[in-house]
Amino acid sequence: MTSPFPFLAIILEVAIIALFGLFVGDEQDQNNYQQPNSTKSTAVDGFLELYPLFQDVHVMIFVGFGFLMTFLKKYGFSSVGINLLIAALGLQWGTLVQGFLHSRGEKIHVGIKNMINADFSTATVLISFGAVLGKISPCQMLIMTIIEIAVFAANEHLVTEVFMASDIGASMTIHAFGAYFGLAVAGVLYRPGLRRGHDNNESMYHSDLFAMIGTLFLWIFWPSFNSALAEAGDKQHWAIVNTYFSLAACVLTAYAFSSLVGHRGKLDMVHIQNATLAGGVAVGTCADMAIHPYISMIIGSIAGMVSVLGFKFVTPLFATKLRIHDTCGVHSLHGLPGVIGGLAGIGAVALEVSNRTGCIGHM
Amino acid sequence: MTSPFPFLAIILEVAIIALFGLFVGDEQDQNNYQQPNSTKSTAVDGFLELYPLFQDVHVMIFVGFGFLMTFLKKYGFSSVGINLLIAALGLQWGTLVQGFLHSRGEKIHVGIKNMINADFSTATVLISFGAVLGKISPCQMLIMTIIEIAVFAANEHLVTEVFMASDIGASMTIHAFGAYFGLAVAGVLYRPGLRRGHDNNESMYHSDLFAMIGTLFLWIFWPSFNSALAEAGDKQHWAIVNTYFSLAACVLTAYAFSSLVGHRGKLDMVHIQNATLAGGVAVGTCADMAIHPYISMIIGSIAGMVSVLGFKFVTPLFATKLRIHDTCGVHSLHGLPGVIGGLAGIGAVALEVSNRTGCIGHM
Amino acid sequence: MTSPFPFLAIILEVAIIALFGLFVGDEQDQNNYQQPNSTKSTAVDGFLELYPLFQDVHVMIFVGFGFLMTFLKKYGFSSVGINLLIAALGLQWGTLVQGFLHSRGEKIHVGIKNMINADFSTATVLISFGAVLGKISPCQMLIMTIIEIAVFAANEHLVTEVFMASDIGASMTIHAFGAYFGLAVAGVLYRPGLRRGHDNNESMYHSDLFAMIGTLFLWIFWPSFNSALAEAGDKQHWAIVNTYFSLAACVLTAYAFSSLVGHRGKLDMVHIQNATLAGGVAVGTCADMAIHPYISMIIGSIAGMVSVLGFKFVTPLFATKLRIHDTCGVHSLHGLPGVIGGLAGIGAVALEVSNRTGCIGHM
Repeated sequence: MTSPFPFLAIILEVAIIALFGLFVGDEQDQNNYQQPNSTKSTAVDGFLELYPLFQDVHVMIFVGFGFLMTFLKKYGFSSVGINLLIAALGLQWGTLVQGFLHSRGEKIHVGIKNMINADFSTATVLISFGAVLGKISPCQMLIMTIIEIAVFAANEHLVTEVFMASDIGASMTIHAFGAYFGLAVAGVLYRPGLRRGHDNNESMYHSDLFAMIGTLFLWIFWPSFNSALAEAGDKQHWAIVNTYFSLAACVLTAYAFSSLVGHRGKLDMVHIQNATLAGGVAVGTCADMAIHPYISMIIGSIAGMVSVLGFKFVTPLFATKLRIHDTCGVHSLHGLPGVIGGLAGIGAVALEVSNRTGCIGHM
Repeated sequence: MTSPFPFLAIILEVAIIALFGLFVGDEQDQNNYQQPNSTKSTAVDGFLELYPLFQDVHVMIFVGFGFLMTFLKKYGFSSVGINLLIAALGLQWGTLVQGFLHSRGEKIHVGIKNMINADFSTATVLISFGAVLGKISPCQMLIMTIIEIAVFAANEHLVTEVFMASDIGASMTIHAFGAYFGLAVAGVLYRPGLRRGHDNNESMYHSDLFAMIGTLFLWIFWPSFNSALAEAGDKQHWAIVNTYFSLAACVLTAYAFSSLVGHRGKLDMVHIQNATLAGGVAVGTCADMAIHPYISMIIGSIAGMVSVLGFKFVTPLFATKLRIHDTCGVHSLHGLPGVIGGLAGIGAVALEVSNRTGCIGHM
Repeated sequence: MTSPFPFLAIILEVAIIALFGLFVGDEQDQNNYQQPNSTKSTAVDGFLELYPLFQDVHVMIFVGFGFLMTFLKKYGFSSVGINLLIAALGLQWGTLVQGFLHSRGEKIHVGIKNMINADFSTATVLISFGAVLGKISPCQMLIMTIIEIAVFAANEHLVTEVFMASDIGASMTIHAFGAYFGLAVAGVLYRPGLRRGHDNNESMYHSDLFAMIGTLFLWIFWPSFNSALAEAGDKQHWAIVNTYFSLAACVLTAYAFSSLVGHRGKLDMVHIQNATLAGGVAVGTCADMAIHPYISMIIGSIAGMVSVLGFKFVTPLFATKLRIHDTCGVHSLHGLPGVIGGLAGIGAVALEVSNRTGCIGHM
């Protein structure tokens, strides 16, 4: 009769506070507060310099992801509400897990880069959430958040610290990882009724406008997402410029292909809300490499096209053939473009376009 | 027959322009444009450095407070519309009143800190507005704005300049002050009919989503609110980090207690929209002190819990016993958490956690 | 039967990518990446310093303009959707066209100022879009975007580079130009049926709240719009401060006159959504001049008043007498206040209030 939700939430919060008390350093001795990354600025200046980029990412996590999922009329409020809950838990837990992996036994010190990384780790869970929305209880979401962020942090540590691979905008480590993790969970939770219950999956006029709030804030601030952790200076500028142009090109092809595959050339709202963002995902891995802007625009164009085709043809196939019901189509928004991003990154490195950019990790 | 509103608005604007002409300094001689606060940067750099934090606060004032109150279906548009009117008047009047108090007879010079302070002074009125929404005409609101900002500025001057008390995030000087000022006005305006008319006080599906826009932008940018006027450097970083973690912890307890006190464990939208912000209010006073992050998380957790219990049990009591009808429940969002913030600040100072942080005023 | 839209969109994107490949410089040799404007900072710092202002402008373009037009209930989604399409095309094309004009035969280098300028050039088209909304197909909009941005760039080059006129907030070059360009197109597209079909032109409760999202983000970030390209230092601060106060004063007179001309003193939502922004348009030209804040407030007050009167009396006249159907009333929001801004600029220069501010161009 009583839901276990409140007790689980309280236990998790108490546990996290205890872990913070034990493992996070006192802020008074934070003269080594700052990662040595930011060149030519004292520790003090670096914090406030990156703070606007952090806030852009923060808006993406809470407003962007939250409202993006409101396009499903039935899940409007729960998508925004559970999004806030997951993200609030995730950023605390992410700070701890990533801190454990990077601090090598010392106390964890919380600076602006840790906060950006903590927000990033919640993004993974929010992407997965899009695949399981409507199939999972708040309680299960809390548990999934704890597990997924731990797996994410381990995977990200492996990729960037051990393999020394570059994935600045996290096409693979966040987007593809989050999408396929969510799809796996959705596969486990599959029930035949989900295929019938498509009336809940419809959008309607006002929910479409709410979803556009999410889409637009994600679209606008994506350059900050892909550049927030890039090396200060040229690489950071490139990440901003490349993402800006990739997203712009992506919009054109997403609209064009939405009209091409649509009934009588009509644009599909779902494509506009989602596929227009694929350019930001796909350019992620190579955003901070010295690629020419027209390359970013090609990557963005391809991503927009592939994402629309994914929504039109692949997502329904998943439900019927693989018995995976992907509520928000995260496979087409984060999965496929994330894979494109990984391939583009390999291409960029292989062509030695970027022979100077060996190993920029995520921290 | 004719409303006095347009005439009052025009007279106020003309008077303010005249006062600006007389008392605000010519910008041409603004080499002393900048408060001496920002260390290690010329006057020029300080302006643009704090500008992103100012804009975050600006979004909170106009989008955050404006949309937060749309959860009441009847007052959706008027809450956003009157919010804009009050804030636009308030920031002009606040610049003048705070300028008079701080300039000590000289001309008032308008820099970025004055703009942040002016926005802060409007926050007080907007908090009070939440208690009187639906009971007061636009004309009365204009008059209340003029009076409340004058009282606020005098009180804030007394607290930070004369008593030398520290209240960087203004838990007491803005939040508790604004809440109790509004409740006092609501008590004066009480009519028995207000208790019956609860159908206007209901929320509905779409108004809940609009209110979440307000909630989320307030939640996201609260670290900027608590840190915008902090001393540049460590104190400012602490204010950001402490507010970030206090808010995250607050979300978990607010959801947990909302479910605990709810019917069959159901979450109450009003709690999610409001109580999740209590952590930002409560950590305000001690945000820039060298407290450990886990202390902020404890403060936030308590604030989230107390705020939900306030909405559930105290706000209805106010209407029935004290004959104070608190339309938006500002007592539970700003009043109680503001008092918690004041107590936490006293505790932090008393325990000498922060023996270096004596007297950071609000300007 | 088949719409030419997808083919046109794809052709345009392919052409733009080809032009980028040919004329935009490789980012690897971007040590001269930065305009020499930003004093006392290396090229590297300037990028990130202006980035928050760029992001504010970016929010205005995509969220502000997009949602502002949702007040027309019938065009809610198409206004946001087409807005995104136009702006995404416009910023790519604007980068090219403005680059051709400024690079004098050399390769175009993309820095933060180019991105701000590209966003500005799309603003022109989005303003014109407000006049032709509902009368024009997506295909025609694509073509109009290409033509208008080319004309805009040529005109802006002429004004700021050849005539050496100052128009930092672009009252004339963007707002008045965009409005009258749009009105000319609307005149060409006039059909008598448009006068009857006024039921599509009505607003309704929820669309009013959506439109306020647009209004508020435009209002909040307008100081960034008017200052993003100003000379670093004092001029940039003045542009921010003057716009801040002009907008605040404008709100008071817009509300007052809306109530004065309204039925029984009632406020008109359309005025609140639009006329409150006129102060930002009108102060644009002289925002970075050393005018006293009270002068900005007078300019803003006049603009708010004129804009309301324009919506009430001039816009209907255009439809009946001039056979120009101005869907969103851009003449009253951008046209008239833009002209006021031009006149105020002439006045400011003539009175030699600003004898030091000769010739700040737009780049």
